[in-house]
Amino acid sequence: MKEPVEPDIFLAMLRASISLWRQQGKRGVWIKLPIKLVNLVETAVKEGFWYHHAEPSYLMLVYWIPETASTIPANASHRVGVGAIVFNDKREVLVVQEKSGRFRGTGVWKIPTGVVDEGEDVFMAAVREVKEETGIDTDFQEILAFRQSHKSFFGKSDLFFLCFLRPLSFDIQKQELEIEAAQWIPFEEYAAQPFAQKHELFKYIADLCLAKVDRTYAGFSPLPITSIFSDQISYLYSNVRDLKQSSSADRH
Amino acid sequence: MKEPVEPDIFLAMLRASISLWRQQGKRGVWIKLPIKLVNLVETAVKEGFWYHHAEPSYLMLVYWIPETASTIPANASHRVGVGAIVFNDKREVLVVQEKSGRFRGTGVWKIPTGVVDEGEDVFMAAVREVKEETGIDTDFQEILAFRQSHKSFFGKSDLFFLCFLRPLSFDIQKQELEIEAAQWIPFEEYAAQPFAQKHELFKYIADLCLAKVDRTYAGFSPLPITSIFSDQISYLYSNVRDLKQSSSADRH
Repeated sequence: MKEPVEPDIFLAMLRASISLWRQQGKRGVWIKLPIKLVNLVETAVKEGFWYHHAEPSYLMLVYWIPETASTIPANASHRVGVGAIVFNDKREVLVVQEKSGRFRGTGVWKIPTGVVDEGEDVFMAAVREVKEETGIDTDFQEILAFRQSHKSFFGKSDLFFLCFLRPLSFDIQKQELEIEAAQWIPFEEYAAQPFAQKHELFKYIADLCLAKVDRTYAGFSPLPITSIFSDQISYLYSNVRDLKQSSSADRH
Repeated sequence: MKEPVEPDIFLAMLRASISLWRQQGKRGVWIKLPIKLVNLVETAVKEGFWYHHAEPSYLMLVYWIPETASTIPANASHRVGVGAIVFNDKREVLVVQEKSGRFRGTGVWKIPTGVVDEGEDVFMAAVREVKEETGIDTDFQEILAFRQSHKSFFGKSDLFFLCFLRPLSFDIQKQELEIEAAQWIPFEEYAAQPFAQKHELFKYIADLCLAKVDRTYAGFSPLPITSIFSDQISYLYSNVRDLKQSSSADRH
């Protein structure tokens, strides 16, 4: 639907179309209504359509013609976030205090975090968030872990990827809008914060960081792959260290 | 908004409220309209509200009062799927042919896959999908890898978790609705399918499977964690083998 139309004309068109589609054996019907055609939403819903999803510029409605159960696929279910551990050669971690959110005014130093944009790769989001919040350039290394949690936001679920990055620059330029303060602090000082002792995810962040820096912890890192169904490149995140060792063992 | 109201009364209420909120310095305004109040959508949009997100039963609208840029958080951006590698002691993989979708009629044997439901844990979804499609009970072992791809569905992004599971039962009871055929096939036969040779993700699936079964590949497995912000349990997926080795090395 693109052109403006009066609701009564739309109603007549809709009824004729559904009758035809029913004869043709069609099952799921989708109507994408741009927000400027908001005058047609009520008509569609009164004819039996319901909401599938919405974005700022449009509303997607669906209708299932047969008597059988609808197999219309669900909407996006997860928000995706990143946390960035940036560790320098002096055993210092890059940390911030935020102007809003849960940690505001607590004095807790936390790693930079943010939301992965639609269409953005997880590893790019980690680099972008660190740059935006602190001005530091980084080289993405690995995803050390991720957490899945539920009912975090309008009933949706949340995937939070904990990333490990190496700094390429060192002078902090903090972002004014969101960040109260930013600094490099000794790892032990970060881990010893009273809050970090109480909060299980914080403790894991410290454990994973030490395991990565001082020992042989292998996380997941991205490899580009192509699909035969599209010409787009996507990324496969895996334990590349173990995978490559395995492959070379194969050949000997 | 819960009770029915006429659009003109709603309009008067809305204008008075926004004027008050503006004086109070409020910024973001949310209206959640149940689908039965669809008669108010047009009024809200004409007053400057836009769509934030929608679910079958409601539409969420937002409005940003100040002149500054809106900091209203984005909607859910990702769908999450699982693929399940179920490998038995005879070096056979559990595979299916689907009645619909991209692989219909191709004769390609693929691993069971499915969508993670809202509120469902990734590892539970893998176990559920295998049970639903093939009747096989499994014990979840690890996430071997995951792929992030974009523009897969209404412009949304997609996270696909490749899981490794051990079978606890062996007699296949295929699901009639979605599954054309299901069987155990020798791993080499699965990997040698012409399609699997062409499709990069298929090749990685075979490589990761061998690395896991015959060598020392470590993926991510879930550990329950609690948050100090809620009493819900969530799961942190990490390379538990490396993390535990590191911790025990610490203590010696």
